[in-house]
Amino acid sequence: MNERIIELVMQKKFSLLKEELNEMMAVDIAEVFDELDKKNSIILFRLLSKDLASDVFSYLSGQQRKDIVEAIHETKLNEIIEELYFDDMIDFLEEMPANVVKKILITATDEERKLINQFLNYPENSAGSLMTIEYVDLKKEMTVKKALEHIKKTGVDKETIYTCYVLNEKRKLEGIVSLRKLVLLEDHLLIEDIMNEDYISCTTLDDQEEIAGLFKKYDLLTVPVVDKEARLVGIITIDDIVDVIEQENTEDFQKMAAMSPNDEEYLFSNVFSLARKRVLWLAILLVTATFTEMIIGKFESILTAVHVLAASIPMLMDTAGNAGAQSSTLIIRGIALGEVELTDYLKVFWKEFRVSSIVGSSLAAINLIRMIVLGTEMAVALTVSITLLLTIMMAKVIGGTLPIVAKKLKLDPAIMAGPLITTIVDVMALLVYFNIAGFLIGF
Amino acid sequence: MNERIIELVMQKKFSLLKEELNEMMAVDIAEVFDELDKKNSIILFRLLSKDLASDVFSYLSGQQRKDIVEAIHETKLNEIIEELYFDDMIDFLEEMPANVVKKILITATDEERKLINQFLNYPENSAGSLMTIEYVDLKKEMTVKKALEHIKKTGVDKETIYTCYVLNEKRKLEGIVSLRKLVLLEDHLLIEDIMNEDYISCTTLDDQEEIAGLFKKYDLLTVPVVDKEARLVGIITIDDIVDVIEQENTEDFQKMAAMSPNDEEYLFSNVFSLARKRVLWLAILLVTATFTEMIIGKFESILTAVHVLAASIPMLMDTAGNAGAQSSTLIIRGIALGEVELTDYLKVFWKEFRVSSIVGSSLAAINLIRMIVLGTEMAVALTVSITLLLTIMMAKVIGGTLPIVAKKLKLDPAIMAGPLITTIVDVMALLVYFNIAGFLIGF
Repeated sequence: MNERIIELVMQKKFSLLKEELNEMMAVDIAEVFDELDKKNSIILFRLLSKDLASDVFSYLSGQQRKDIVEAIHETKLNEIIEELYFDDMIDFLEEMPANVVKKILITATDEERKLINQFLNYPENSAGSLMTIEYVDLKKEMTVKKALEHIKKTGVDKETIYTCYVLNEKRKLEGIVSLRKLVLLEDHLLIEDIMNEDYISCTTLDDQEEIAGLFKKYDLLTVPVVDKEARLVGIITIDDIVDVIEQENTEDFQKMAAMSPNDEEYLFSNVFSLARKRVLWLAILLVTATFTEMIIGKFESILTAVHVLAASIPMLMDTAGNAGAQSSTLIIRGIALGEVELTDYLKVFWKEFRVSSIVGSSLAAINLIRMIVLGTEMAVALTVSITLLLTIMMAKVIGGTLPIVAKKLKLDPAIMAGPLITTIVDVMALLVYFNIAGFLIGF
Repeated sequence: MNERIIELVMQKKFSLLKEELNEMMAVDIAEVFDELDKKNSIILFRLLSKDLASDVFSYLSGQQRKDIVEAIHETKLNEIIEELYFDDMIDFLEEMPANVVKKILITATDEERKLINQFLNYPENSAGSLMTIEYVDLKKEMTVKKALEHIKKTGVDKETIYTCYVLNEKRKLEGIVSLRKLVLLEDHLLIEDIMNEDYISCTTLDDQEEIAGLFKKYDLLTVPVVDKEARLVGIITIDDIVDVIEQENTEDFQKMAAMSPNDEEYLFSNVFSLARKRVLWLAILLVTATFTEMIIGKFESILTAVHVLAASIPMLMDTAGNAGAQSSTLIIRGIALGEVELTDYLKVFWKEFRVSSIVGSSLAAINLIRMIVLGTEMAVALTVSITLLLTIMMAKVIGGTLPIVAKKLKLDPAIMAGPLITTIVDVMALLVYFNIAGFLIGF
């Protein structure tokens, strides 16, 4: 599909191309732009019909939009922007250079300009930054019939008509009616009598992660956003929430792998910005490794006497680190999904204690057999296996409880994941190892 | 809120409780059950009105449902099951013991029984296992007016009426019409002329992850599921897809932390089942650590001569492992989100090469300063820093490209994450370390 379009662009078969494009979905056309250079992107964009152009535009990346804005005529740009939903327009304005934003604001009415400025000021990741203003508003005195007529008249430009909002003359939100009810119930009923007054809502400054939680828990399609006076300022729709869910998951993956979060696509990210996101945590973890060096330095005499002990250090540290990462991952994920609460601290502690005794003894047994088969001295094999049991237990209990402690201290549980747990567990593993060696082998 | 309900249960204030429950949402009531014992759960459940009972039931956990099924009367159970949407009923039947399923199937009609058996046979994680059969079907000869009347008559029990399906007499799916169109367009238009024939659909055996991808890409609310003859067999709705997205993310988190995936909630999971999910990978990684032991064994003479070299092994291994995990996480996530393709292999290689040279040299510099400050010999400090640079580069290039190789070999990229990369990188880090030590310090 994409190949065919690219071929047609290259062959400059524009009339055929126009036909094909009209058959395609906007999001599929947007994908083709990823594989075209700047010049051909602009050619392709110019071929799109007016309606399609703004749809495709809303799916393009920031850089692609900039290229197109530079190349197309101002009137055409204004046409495209007028067709965009309000939330997509705000996203677009946020990434454009100031002079472009200025040009666009000049053509807007005073009221529009005020609204745009207000929306541009909502913090990133807040409800305000996600919402759109194209919703259906009803009055409670309307009948079902009247409401349906009102929707027919005003609904075309709304982002969704499936949930309608009942407002009073001060735009205060009084209730919610689904289109489902309007279609299924009798024509003469009053909105007032069928609207839902116990609706779920959020405010402009609520965090997007919490709002995603509401959608998941209550299976919502939209949520109204109200200001301090309970006036409706916008709505958030499920399609944007699906993106939020993936974005929050990506951030957790990145933090758990010791990176600063970054919501750019990997292939479109700059090398220096990627490097910067990675260096900080690696440097912190590297400097804390000074502790492991000090411990090994302190117990040097044991290592010199029984140098075979050095050989097992990597295995012990890796296994302890992996065991801790397993537990911390499960708990961090549980917290993110709302399955594990702060009050579950003792439950987690006790569960990890039991799980880790089973896991620890199994691995200690496997290791004992492995070392005996390899012909290791019994005292050394025992030292390594007992250390394994104890460090796995410590690693899992710490790995399981530390994210909860972090949450309690209002820190992000995700930064307590693998890498940090590993560093903590390394220090303990070495201490246990050398002490048991001292005891069993004798120094 | 929950505390208040629990208090009322304990005080046996049943009539007050009934009133309060009628004001609450089903999902909130279901949460209260998590904090009640079996006896009180059953008391609370009996107090629910008929409609609320089946709603609450659909939100309960498997064990809670079993407890209730054992305690309530068969007629009441049948009432609840009749009220459930078909997909929720199938989920419920799947987790009940055979004798309960049998009892329920006896009360079903022949046709229902056939359908239930068909649905129970769809593989886990397939479209078939997610879909429901309560959809609105229209005929293409209907006018908009007729279609709306048809919806008004049949819509009450449908899971959604926002997307309607146009079927011919053989139940073949001919097109899709949104309720939005039906409400906004003129009454006299024919469904045939307004239906969308280029709809997105899937088949019963499609994997849920792919289907979630369709919802994300095309911003869908529902997707039709068709059989080989293009007959409509069911629909999948966005609320179930949101759950699928979180479930797939949880699985990736678990695999990337070297665990076998598990979709039970942590706090409700059995200790032995948790332990089993964790032991396998830890054991595999432990056994592969034999390589690191062999390498250290082989270079023992260097360690004995310059024992300060041993002290830096943990730091080198951890940093290399962390660096590799950063890259593999980014690429695994990119693959999961469809941002990184198999054909991007060389792009990723080149990008990781450049990023890792920046990250590697920064960390090598930081480490050199750190070791000089701590008074380490220059030759040793240089050995460690150069090893750091080289292993970070190797770790990142391997960490970035191995997930793509895995995907090419039809393996799950997520199992190439942190722990496995760490083990591979450890071996290389040690080899580089001892060879550079041999060269710089001289053996």
